[in-house]
Amino acid sequence: MPPAHPLQPLAHAIRFLAIDAIVRAGEGHQGVPLGMAEIATALYTRHLKHDPADPLWPDRDRVVLSNGHGSMLLYALLHLSGYERITLEQIRRFRELGAHTAGHPEIDPAAGIELTTGLLGQGIANALGMAVAEAHLNARFGGSLVDHRTWAFVGDGCLQEGVGQEAIALAGHLRLAKLTFLWDDNRITDDGSTELSISESVPERFRVAQWHVQEVDGHDIEAVSAAIAAAKEDPRPSLIACRTVIARGITRLEGQRGGHSAKLFEADAQAAREALGWPHPPFEVPAAVLQAWRDAGARSRPAHDAWRARVAALPAAGRAEFERVQRGELPAGWRNVLLEHKRAALAAEPASAQAGATQSGIFLSSAIHERLNDVLPERFVLCPDLEAPTSHKRGVTAFTATDRAGRYLHCGVREHVMGAMANGMAAHGGTLPVAVTYFAFSDYERPALRMAALMRLPVKFVFSHDSIGIGRNGPTHQPVEMLAALRAMPDMLVMRPADIVEAAECWEIALEHRAGPVSLVFARQALPRVREAAGTGSSAAENLCRRGAYVLAEAAGGARRVTLLATGSEVALAVQARARLQAEGVPTAVVSMPCWELFEQQDSAWQQHVLGPGTMRVAVEAAVRFGWERWLGERGAFVGMAGFGASGPADELYRHFGITVEAVVAAARQGLARAARPEAAPN
Amino acid sequence: MPPAHPLQPLAHAIRFLAIDAIVRAGEGHQGVPLGMAEIATALYTRHLKHDPADPLWPDRDRVVLSNGHGSMLLYALLHLSGYERITLEQIRRFRELGAHTAGHPEIDPAAGIELTTGLLGQGIANALGMAVAEAHLNARFGGSLVDHRTWAFVGDGCLQEGVGQEAIALAGHLRLAKLTFLWDDNRITDDGSTELSISESVPERFRVAQWHVQEVDGHDIEAVSAAIAAAKEDPRPSLIACRTVIARGITRLEGQRGGHSAKLFEADAQAAREALGWPHPPFEVPAAVLQAWRDAGARSRPAHDAWRARVAALPAAGRAEFERVQRGELPAGWRNVLLEHKRAALAAEPASAQAGATQSGIFLSSAIHERLNDVLPERFVLCPDLEAPTSHKRGVTAFTATDRAGRYLHCGVREHVMGAMANGMAAHGGTLPVAVTYFAFSDYERPALRMAALMRLPVKFVFSHDSIGIGRNGPTHQPVEMLAALRAMPDMLVMRPADIVEAAECWEIALEHRAGPVSLVFARQALPRVREAAGTGSSAAENLCRRGAYVLAEAAGGARRVTLLATGSEVALAVQARARLQAEGVPTAVVSMPCWELFEQQDSAWQQHVLGPGTMRVAVEAAVRFGWERWLGERGAFVGMAGFGASGPADELYRHFGITVEAVVAAARQGLARAARPEAAPN
Repeated sequence: MPPAHPLQPLAHAIRFLAIDAIVRAGEGHQGVPLGMAEIATALYTRHLKHDPADPLWPDRDRVVLSNGHGSMLLYALLHLSGYERITLEQIRRFRELGAHTAGHPEIDPAAGIELTTGLLGQGIANALGMAVAEAHLNARFGGSLVDHRTWAFVGDGCLQEGVGQEAIALAGHLRLAKLTFLWDDNRITDDGSTELSISESVPERFRVAQWHVQEVDGHDIEAVSAAIAAAKEDPRPSLIACRTVIARGITRLEGQRGGHSAKLFEADAQAAREALGWPHPPFEVPAAVLQAWRDAGARSRPAHDAWRARVAALPAAGRAEFERVQRGELPAGWRNVLLEHKRAALAAEPASAQAGATQSGIFLSSAIHERLNDVLPERFVLCPDLEAPTSHKRGVTAFTATDRAGRYLHCGVREHVMGAMANGMAAHGGTLPVAVTYFAFSDYERPALRMAALMRLPVKFVFSHDSIGIGRNGPTHQPVEMLAALRAMPDMLVMRPADIVEAAECWEIALEHRAGPVSLVFARQALPRVREAAGTGSSAAENLCRRGAYVLAEAAGGARRVTLLATGSEVALAVQARARLQAEGVPTAVVSMPCWELFEQQDSAWQQHVLGPGTMRVAVEAAVRFGWERWLGERGAFVGMAGFGASGPADELYRHFGITVEAVVAAARQGLARAARPEAAPN
Repeated sequence: MPPAHPLQPLAHAIRFLAIDAIVRAGEGHQGVPLGMAEIATALYTRHLKHDPADPLWPDRDRVVLSNGHGSMLLYALLHLSGYERITLEQIRRFRELGAHTAGHPEIDPAAGIELTTGLLGQGIANALGMAVAEAHLNARFGGSLVDHRTWAFVGDGCLQEGVGQEAIALAGHLRLAKLTFLWDDNRITDDGSTELSISESVPERFRVAQWHVQEVDGHDIEAVSAAIAAAKEDPRPSLIACRTVIARGITRLEGQRGGHSAKLFEADAQAAREALGWPHPPFEVPAAVLQAWRDAGARSRPAHDAWRARVAALPAAGRAEFERVQRGELPAGWRNVLLEHKRAALAAEPASAQAGATQSGIFLSSAIHERLNDVLPERFVLCPDLEAPTSHKRGVTAFTATDRAGRYLHCGVREHVMGAMANGMAAHGGTLPVAVTYFAFSDYERPALRMAALMRLPVKFVFSHDSIGIGRNGPTHQPVEMLAALRAMPDMLVMRPADIVEAAECWEIALEHRAGPVSLVFARQALPRVREAAGTGSSAAENLCRRGAYVLAEAAGGARRVTLLATGSEVALAVQARARLQAEGVPTAVVSMPCWELFEQQDSAWQQHVLGPGTMRVAVEAAVRFGWERWLGERGAFVGMAGFGASGPADELYRHFGITVEAVVAAARQGLARAARPEAAPN
């Protein structure tokens, strides 16, 4: 056996913090921290640009633990490097409720935790988004302000997942040289040998995708470090395949299936101490080793100081813009663009507004985006091969391998990685990612939507072709349950604007909303203007969508008896139904409900004002009823879809499925008649 | 130009049926049928084993149009080959409401349409499942009964999607020799050149994945035919990369981005007729060409006759079993196994029943499956690298490249392709696919879940680790919104059993249910038996879950005042809350609601009996409230999750999030007090 590498004690410090924390917690995943300790040591002591004293330094390298179950690797690294929030006490409290040291990493950049990870494949796709953000900001602000790398710790699972495969293909295509994957090639997954489920050479798969690939002994610190150095020199993204032994150090489990997460005992920890020559008690890092780690953590401080000096030396306007973008603040002027757009829409003659609404509803969004191009330079659009029908590329060029200034990314037919990249861009900071696709494909990116919500990232997800209104492409492409499925997701604002005015208002809210993701859902079919037509008497500056739901047209000729609730393309239908009912002498209001989540947050007085207690409520939405009972109460009626759609012309489908003015009117009449019969008590 | 191939007119017949139908419909996707006409001609006239006179012949080859937007290719092939349901009139009615010729193919095996396709990547993953089913049935029943191939027409989109990449990796690993992809290598997607979003060699990617790969001119019928012949000889799955020109024949669009689906006009059709020398009027196929097609369609009739003879010659028992499995009928005896299991569970002393419930809730399902091994030989389990924690491999071996008799497929960390494969297996027939994973990963396979529902395929999706009860792995792995998201999906039965008895009852229902998919959702934590403890007085044979919800414990000591609604792991909690309320003199019932969809189908009398009109209803479920208003009405209360979970011990999490006996009792008390105050009217 050769003499131990001088950095070996640093790697062992990771290893034993992980072992001690996992033994103490009684559970955890030792496979990654024990298998990747040397890899991480090579990266953190010699290559990583970071400053534990300022975890939010915008030009820091980003580290993504894509194999998030190995969270103790990250916590050990953060503690040893000197990140203040990850104290030894936190390490001791691994997996306890309320600790920073959760079972899987939970986003907290101020603690050095860049992302929530653990759903396999998400992390490397996030990392790709971070590398895109860096490349774009590097082009926008120059290499003296933005020049950092993205490193991802990666396991077999991440690379088997479809989203991971999408990330590999797209990263190679985009030649993101500053993206490096450190692959824990331990040939073991939870079920056993990787041979159970894969027969391809992973390095070859990356080579085909135009990556720079190296294969090294993952326990040889010098070899890993040399590979990292070579990766930094190559113009392609890099895979470093690090051959490792899972659970290295726990003799009983080394290289075994149980190495992944089989329970560790005190005896295992003791045996490891003896085997590896680590005489120190649990949770104790020898002072010299800790100092070496802290010195390593301070390596980039001069670079950080120099960077600060360069920022300070910037012309005032340039510096202000750079700092604004880094803080994620919106620029001056963006709101005026939306207000002008809305004023112009409201000022147009109803006839011309109607005439203007012969184009696809999603174009109401893209027209707004075209106007935002100049005023919102951080906006960055991603789209999976639907440029023409979704139309959000107006006035911008593509981000490519050779042009990083572009603000539109052709993702290929890869929705999942698109969503996860958008998350990575938002977590990185400096850009405002907008991910656009058909609503029917929202399921493809749903794991990424959920991660955006869980991380409360300010991503704008835009969906078009939102219902049976897409017509002849049929039920595969007709979302009927997706509104409900998205509304069920915590911390996701779901908006379905009814017309050009609501589109502007919803975008105003969406751009302001930094506390989580927003989904904006648009029809394919034309959306005639409804706002002024029904006369709400509000000023152009007032954003009626802000309260989630509002009375678009109040009942006339007496106390309100019927309340018609609708969203998106069905608001126009409700307006027509109201006209019929009013003509029959039934005082009827139309309520537009573009955002349930915002309405839910309103006080009871507003909710009652809008919903009309005691009135017959009829909801109309070209989607399933699921969830509508929240607003309908026990007596309300629903006009919408009872199941999946069909292939046919849109107008025929609306008739076929009974989503018509007549059906709404009939439901209201029946409800009123039923209420007049006292014997029909609610259940 | 060389002389036209004698089969060229057959290819042109496809081409012009497609052009004429698309011109008539005013929309459609010409790219695929015009680009792949020669490829399809080579396959259908010389290689495909099928019998248009008997589309359901179990030993037919399966054809999957994975690029489903090119549906006119399939309709033209079916019509020309002689499938009765796809008449010329149907071709004329392309994309009309109610026609067989929908915008995207919609499953109808009796018409020759094997699958609903159009969401890219699904079809090839379905095809992989079909090939698995064939290989397994071939092993089970022998090559004289089962020996057919699976062919997939594939576009660039299918191969870019993550699920497609998962399918490529797994098919190569499994060496499914009878699976062939015919790739429409036209170098164009909707956004333009494929160079916009991919830089890798697709053939090389397949070679890495251990496929047999050939590259041919896709308009050279002879070359394609030779490649198909070679594919049939190779022991690996085959990719035939067919270099094509998109929209071949429409000069204006050939090789262009608009070739995909730009609107076609009469003038285009006329120009194509002149360019390709096709003087026949729209929708007219010359008699000789039609005859050649019909002859081609009849090619396999002798093989079919011989197959029928072999089936007829089988010993009676073997034949009956083969035919039973093909019909998808359940065998004798399966139900008794479940009933015995249930009887034993009910007969156990409550103490021992509780003691037995110290293992994971999902093991209640795996224990049942272990007992089904012998009696239900068509059961086939798929799982993405979670064999140990989900435990559904008990007593069976793995299906591998060398052992096709295995009934468990290690899918690798690839949930999406698992779900889509299960769909393909169900559509193929002859097996009963069961796809098992953590509930948190249901989002990863959600597009496949939706396709199962849309196709009404009898797939059993099993989910474990269904709530915050998983504990310290944290919010990434804690489903809170997934129950609501699944319940929102049409035609999907969602079941969440409360204990060992309900597990057996729900599996009884799930196995009987052939009209669509079922999702069975189990806890990770132990599920103590609740059924007998609360005493329903039912016999063991009676399946109380069949009506979706039932009174597990009726109120005592007076008319019911409180109704506690719960599912799964929270039913035990409701039972404890009931004991408290009863002790306080509040007559309280517990309702278990394992399946909302079944309860929804019950008559009003049953629903009222269960829900208790006028009582205070409190629902408890470790998930979000979304959807519960349907059962709670306006006055009901909900005890559950308000957002995402956290990392910590399960019992602490239940307390932390307030899902406790105390909270349920308090909600009931408050509701009763509120109801006693007349001023508090519902809104």
